[in-house]
Amino acid sequence: MSFVLGPNRYGKAETRVVRVRRDTARHEVRDLNVSTSLRGDFTAAHVEGDQSNVLTTDTQKNTAFAYAKRVGVSSPEAYALALGDRLLTAAPAATASRVQVEEYAWERVEVDGTGHDHTFVRRGGEEVRTAVVVRERDGEPTVVSGFTGLVVMKTTGSQFTGFLREDYTTLQDAEDRVLATSLTARWRHATTDGLDWDAAHAAVRQTCLAAFATTYSRALQETLWAMGSAVLEAHPHVAEVDFSAPNRHHFVVDLTPFGLENPGEVFHAADRPYGLIEARVQREAHECREHFGEL
Amino acid sequence: MSFVLGPNRYGKAETRVVRVRRDTARHEVRDLNVSTSLRGDFTAAHVEGDQSNVLTTDTQKNTAFAYAKRVGVSSPEAYALALGDRLLTAAPAATASRVQVEEYAWERVEVDGTGHDHTFVRRGGEEVRTAVVVRERDGEPTVVSGFTGLVVMKTTGSQFTGFLREDYTTLQDAEDRVLATSLTARWRHATTDGLDWDAAHAAVRQTCLAAFATTYSRALQETLWAMGSAVLEAHPHVAEVDFSAPNRHHFVVDLTPFGLENPGEVFHAADRPYGLIEARVQREAHECREHFGEL
Amino acid sequence: MSFVLGPNRYGKAETRVVRVRRDTARHEVRDLNVSTSLRGDFTAAHVEGDQSNVLTTDTQKNTAFAYAKRVGVSSPEAYALALGDRLLTAAPAATASRVQVEEYAWERVEVDGTGHDHTFVRRGGEEVRTAVVVRERDGEPTVVSGFTGLVVMKTTGSQFTGFLREDYTTLQDAEDRVLATSLTARWRHATTDGLDWDAAHAAVRQTCLAAFATTYSRALQETLWAMGSAVLEAHPHVAEVDFSAPNRHHFVVDLTPFGLENPGEVFHAADRPYGLIEARVQREAHECREHFGEL
Amino acid sequence: MSFVLGPNRYGKAETRVVRVRRDTARHEVRDLNVSTSLRGDFTAAHVEGDQSNVLTTDTQKNTAFAYAKRVGVSSPEAYALALGDRLLTAAPAATASRVQVEEYAWERVEVDGTGHDHTFVRRGGEEVRTAVVVRERDGEPTVVSGFTGLVVMKTTGSQFTGFLREDYTTLQDAEDRVLATSLTARWRHATTDGLDWDAAHAAVRQTCLAAFATTYSRALQETLWAMGSAVLEAHPHVAEVDFSAPNRHHFVVDLTPFGLENPGEVFHAADRPYGLIEARVQREAHECREHFGEL
Repeated sequence: MSFVLGPNRYGKAETRVVRVRRDTARHEVRDLNVSTSLRGDFTAAHVEGDQSNVLTTDTQKNTAFAYAKRVGVSSPEAYALALGDRLLTAAPAATASRVQVEEYAWERVEVDGTGHDHTFVRRGGEEVRTAVVVRERDGEPTVVSGFTGLVVMKTTGSQFTGFLREDYTTLQDAEDRVLATSLTARWRHATTDGLDWDAAHAAVRQTCLAAFATTYSRALQETLWAMGSAVLEAHPHVAEVDFSAPNRHHFVVDLTPFGLENPGEVFHAADRPYGLIEARVQREAHECREHFGEL
Repeated sequence: MSFVLGPNRYGKAETRVVRVRRDTARHEVRDLNVSTSLRGDFTAAHVEGDQSNVLTTDTQKNTAFAYAKRVGVSSPEAYALALGDRLLTAAPAATASRVQVEEYAWERVEVDGTGHDHTFVRRGGEEVRTAVVVRERDGEPTVVSGFTGLVVMKTTGSQFTGFLREDYTTLQDAEDRVLATSLTARWRHATTDGLDWDAAHAAVRQTCLAAFATTYSRALQETLWAMGSAVLEAHPHVAEVDFSAPNRHHFVVDLTPFGLENPGEVFHAADRPYGLIEARVQREAHECREHFGEL
Repeated sequence: MSFVLGPNRYGKAETRVVRVRRDTARHEVRDLNVSTSLRGDFTAAHVEGDQSNVLTTDTQKNTAFAYAKRVGVSSPEAYALALGDRLLTAAPAATASRVQVEEYAWERVEVDGTGHDHTFVRRGGEEVRTAVVVRERDGEPTVVSGFTGLVVMKTTGSQFTGFLREDYTTLQDAEDRVLATSLTARWRHATTDGLDWDAAHAAVRQTCLAAFATTYSRALQETLWAMGSAVLEAHPHVAEVDFSAPNRHHFVVDLTPFGLENPGEVFHAADRPYGLIEARVQREAHECREHFGEL
Repeated sequence: MSFVLGPNRYGKAETRVVRVRRDTARHEVRDLNVSTSLRGDFTAAHVEGDQSNVLTTDTQKNTAFAYAKRVGVSSPEAYALALGDRLLTAAPAATASRVQVEEYAWERVEVDGTGHDHTFVRRGGEEVRTAVVVRERDGEPTVVSGFTGLVVMKTTGSQFTGFLREDYTTLQDAEDRVLATSLTARWRHATTDGLDWDAAHAAVRQTCLAAFATTYSRALQETLWAMGSAVLEAHPHVAEVDFSAPNRHHFVVDLTPFGLENPGEVFHAADRPYGLIEARVQREAHECREHFGEL
């Protein structure tokens, strides 16, 4: 009996590249977690054990480090574009390369009110900036920018009422609740010409935050829609934006057994289970079954 | 300006359902982590904040618990099929339900050589059995069984040689190496009629283990192919099988500075970066861009 | 044969208490992870199964929530002092209570340059503020403030040379290296009278950061000493300060095989193994074998 | 102003040593996570930046690898004893060495009913065998064996009733409940002469499991006492045994809103908060404030 090789890809995941610019006494740092992979005609490697077409994952790692020096890291996107090009060139059997970058943010330590030249403190920790570049041999590369782990909370301005009720429904309407999530957002660029990637990223992130803050929420779904619409409205270079939002439930604690009222002041922050809401907002309807995470 | 709602889904993730059968003194335990979601016409919930079509994630959670009692848990797959049906019935606006189950295995504590009636110890920990059932309103449900975190290692019987060399290649040929991975496998069922889900799962898992053990490996890719082919060969009910295999690198430690030889005896088990190999083996070629993980 | 009950304690760990102050439209949030425990004469509970002296862990949890309302959370320390008192009162068999609080920081989302009234974003994620209060029936409570997960890095101003060399030493002198750590610090208060806990915490943290930045480092040990001395110098209310500092190694990547120089510009950030340096700085020598973590 | 260096120690944490014995075709594997540290007179390193007495953490790592070859790994304890001796010898300024080993268990993959010669599967994952050896310059080394992450559950044979009730108590008596924990145990050896470390470890672990299974539990405290007493009774070489047991709460789900009874059949396995019970059982009363974890 004979079988067929289906979809496949391979690469090096989580190469931790730290790039320091030290041309002047005022150093700059970019701290990346780089994952690369290749797709293409690698049937021989699987079926016959023939590795002659395989650009090894070790070489992919070496290239990730070398390119941090050779082209530098002006932004995760620019670095990923260059690295993805190189991998396609180096591996003739590949039909597409994929470079995924997570960036951890650092800010200068303040000493006497001034940012220090060469000492940094990690900003955030759960929040990570992301970029994915997919390059096929022909055509424009697909560039998806984003972030994950942006944890936000509203202590009012959110309700959840009027939902479907049936046999297994016990939830009561909530007229005023805490809404919190650890937001993942990814946006695909329609055009990349002349884009300042760092500035563009900061601007889209701020649009999401402001929309989260200022939109009265009748469901997390509505909040995602509001954020997505705001991003498309304000940023013409964005073609579509995809959200994944775990609902970090904050339950009002019943303090009546202790003779205490609790008008939305004391909450239990629960771990599991959690609602998980995923949605995309686009400029116009088109076919795209995959979530960006699978790009 | 107006925009369009793209792909979306919502549900309750990670409901931790533990089901005890105690009809006799000899108890049985099934320990599940259940995630459910719905797709369909939920535009009003997003765009207008109208929740009247929304089967809440809280209700989905209640249903997951109630069905553990009502239909029981004879297997993750059977439970997921019943739960997915119910969710579709309860939510008329949904066009599809998805139920994902992770199962944690327990075995009886041995006392005086006999398994105890009601005391159990977690077997494995990293290894988790998985099942995903996707049900659309029409047609047969898609059932994907699998496991994740099956950590395996060969201390010999593996090489990696003859690969592509170019400017950034420094890796040397390895004629005899340690091969280790934390294997994820998922297989889609062509037919489910009369299947004993627990027995079928154990059998496919054993086929993977035996193929890993007995195949001489010229690359992790070849090992995945060997496992996939063996599964299709031995299990006619499997239509295709998908693997994700992070290469857990074991580097030979250089002990020569200390006057010691190291013929493959002392290794450093590295964390990151790691090779990541993903491949699917099918009975015949067909279109399926998505990895099962995205089903 | 009969045996003896040795040291023991019990309590409720990781109660996730979120306290919102909403007296005005400008809300305030304190987000805590609270663990409480009791020590004392609980022999009957262990040896005879008699729970009549046991203040249950469930009651401890209830009290943690109720006290977030009753006394509020002006600071982790003030809240822990009140809660620890209550637990001792409620459990006559206890000789000591211990309350450990982790606090997650939130800051206001900026909208049009102003902090929003009721929308917050998690600041940090890895960094957590800590407080431990141990209260015995007699005497003053011990209050230890601190933080964990403060990730800092210097890209120059650090060396490591002149160390002991013997048979198993291969490390070369490093004249200029990256120094990075995820710092844990804990300081015991000599006096607590009139202390503004939040301001005092911010001040000690800033002293640590400034000392890390401005001290030329000949070893991580020396940096810990410098930080500890600076804290004791600047903050008379601190009796002693304890550090735990995993050395997050940044290895210079060898790019010479690719014809590239790398004068401290491209690093591999390694996970494991890592150096782990622990030290305490005190005002004067005294007996104290335990690390504060065990308080 | 001048200050004093208090307690301090330093070393290399989490060196991942994998040792393969391949003298015959039937390979053996020991998979270790090794952490070493030194205490002693290291004031100069801290205060003056003088590293001449410092056995670097890099050298400690090298020694951990070299000793896996030189003396082998017949057991974690034997390996740790040898490595601790060497570190004391190599670092004259140290007064004590500490070697902590975690071991991950592997078992042979079964092929056609027989264990394979060189292919292994990770057994457990959460469960880890532990050993700590502390060696001072004089006297016998302290050897503490143990395990962590042994997850056990009883579906009956456990109650919790008759506890203290006061203002904040809402918990109801439970006459029949699920009792589950992720057990950590550590036992100090009174004598080590002629001990077969692997056999002794397996025997103590089995004593704990059997006591957990066969003891009717009126509280987790009583179960710890029963396990500890059983260990001291059956294993004369054990001087004392220390337990840490997070109570993995399984809450009975209220199914009455759905017209279903739930006589202890469907549970919600909760994450946080959790009870945490810690206790030691000794042959006779003596001073020992520290938990073994701090050794």
